[in-house]
Amino acid sequence: MRVAYQGEAGAFSENAAKRLLGAEIVGVPCHSFEDMFASVGSGNADCCIAPIENSLAGSIHRNYDLLLQSELSIAGETSMRIVHNLIAPPDVSLAEIRRVYSHPVALAQCTRFFSSNPNVEPIAVHDTAGAVRLIMDRGRKDEAAIASAAAAEIYAGRVLLEGIEDNVQNYTRFFLLAPQSEAAKITPRETARRWKTSIVFRVSNKPGALFRALGAFAIFEIDLTKIESRPIEGKPWEYAFYLDFIGKFDDPNVARALDSLRELAEMVRLLGSYATRW
Amino acid sequence: MRVAYQGEAGAFSENAAKRLLGAEIVGVPCHSFEDMFASVGSGNADCCIAPIENSLAGSIHRNYDLLLQSELSIAGETSMRIVHNLIAPPDVSLAEIRRVYSHPVALAQCTRFFSSNPNVEPIAVHDTAGAVRLIMDRGRKDEAAIASAAAAEIYAGRVLLEGIEDNVQNYTRFFLLAPQSEAAKITPRETARRWKTSIVFRVSNKPGALFRALGAFAIFEIDLTKIESRPIEGKPWEYAFYLDFIGKFDDPNVARALDSLRELAEMVRLLGSYATRW
Repeated sequence: MRVAYQGEAGAFSENAAKRLLGAEIVGVPCHSFEDMFASVGSGNADCCIAPIENSLAGSIHRNYDLLLQSELSIAGETSMRIVHNLIAPPDVSLAEIRRVYSHPVALAQCTRFFSSNPNVEPIAVHDTAGAVRLIMDRGRKDEAAIASAAAAEIYAGRVLLEGIEDNVQNYTRFFLLAPQSEAAKITPRETARRWKTSIVFRVSNKPGALFRALGAFAIFEIDLTKIESRPIEGKPWEYAFYLDFIGKFDDPNVARALDSLRELAEMVRLLGSYATRW
Repeated sequence: MRVAYQGEAGAFSENAAKRLLGAEIVGVPCHSFEDMFASVGSGNADCCIAPIENSLAGSIHRNYDLLLQSELSIAGETSMRIVHNLIAPPDVSLAEIRRVYSHPVALAQCTRFFSSNPNVEPIAVHDTAGAVRLIMDRGRKDEAAIASAAAAEIYAGRVLLEGIEDNVQNYTRFFLLAPQSEAAKITPRETARRWKTSIVFRVSNKPGALFRALGAFAIFEIDLTKIESRPIEGKPWEYAFYLDFIGKFDDPNVARALDSLRELAEMVRLLGSYATRW
């Protein structure tokens, strides 16, 4: 199974893909989320793993937009605790470090480290694991990176400080995405405690429209786990809503709720039903 | 009136502040949104102007989070069409340009310009107007910036191409924010067509909780204009909801809806009622 992900070997996304599909996957590292979706579209990868939400930073909107533009379905979901480590070449000590490279979100989640080390400058790069590769390639005595322990191992860096994130309640949720015909065949390893379904819908810009749409779910006692609004291009201040809820698309009550929603809404698209561990 | 804004003189935010409060305001340029909120907190500015949403890129979540952390109220609202211009020193021609500086969102909104000018490299900086100051200070023949016409005027740059944004339906919505005691005294120049109110609330993580909360507004026929969810720190996968609706906090029906919501919700905070032009 070839799995595209954004970042370089050792990225948190790659760890998430291994957790869902096993360590024997073939990773397809991509520079950007756009490249990652395109590589599945072009057949260079069988599926991709997209971070969709972080419990501190919020939704990763670019991936919501790309998911809607693509024809991929959600085949699985996982959530990983994000542990940020300070990683440097083996012979470097903490006192020598002056510059620390990482993804801007990772840097923003380690503010306590930077305020207690005022001589250290944070420098944003496009990927956490790529930051480790960069500082190992350069091999300077005054540079370090913030990334996963897996990235330290891959590039033979040394973890100088473990768990330097400000808040330990730091989780990222990932979607495993595949062409619709393939999505049902992929069996993630996560023990299926329950099913979840994700949809996107648009309602007319009328008073009570969103309330009535959510009513379709309330009537059939369906538990919503997330709602997210995104702007509609070309229609300023109108929104599409992404909804996650408990249940599978062909559960009788879910099917009834979706039928009711289709009556009310201008557009409804099923993004996928998937087994989830949590 | 001293108005803090993120960016340098000529920033879109400064234009929005002038539109709301008149050209005679004293601008207080700030490096970051954090600095902007802090400058009102410390008394260095009387109020600040925060971009809250772009009709293409979506909500500016950092400002939602900072608004909730602050004790500021919304005193006014405006929406500005964003026109991106290619700006260079007066003696530079389009054919010579190799690097274009701007804010990453502005660069992302001018993809057509970059694909039809493949020799030109986009370079991200923290502010559109600051990009104009930068290229004018350097005075190179091969560098330009993307920013507002106002920024071109302030730094004596020449507009080489006007309106290079991909999508003309490009609007940014701004909140004017002030300490609660001052907010009611500020009279924005926008002709008050109608009132709007913004709140933030949290509901318990139970099936139907959001539906019931929105029901409080549906019962009293209040027109919701926006809903936005943001993660709650320390409670992974639980959310606070930001709601905008038509009406003033002391309109009888709005007051009744807010009373009902307070019965249902774990937390409700009024962020402000403000006159709006649209």
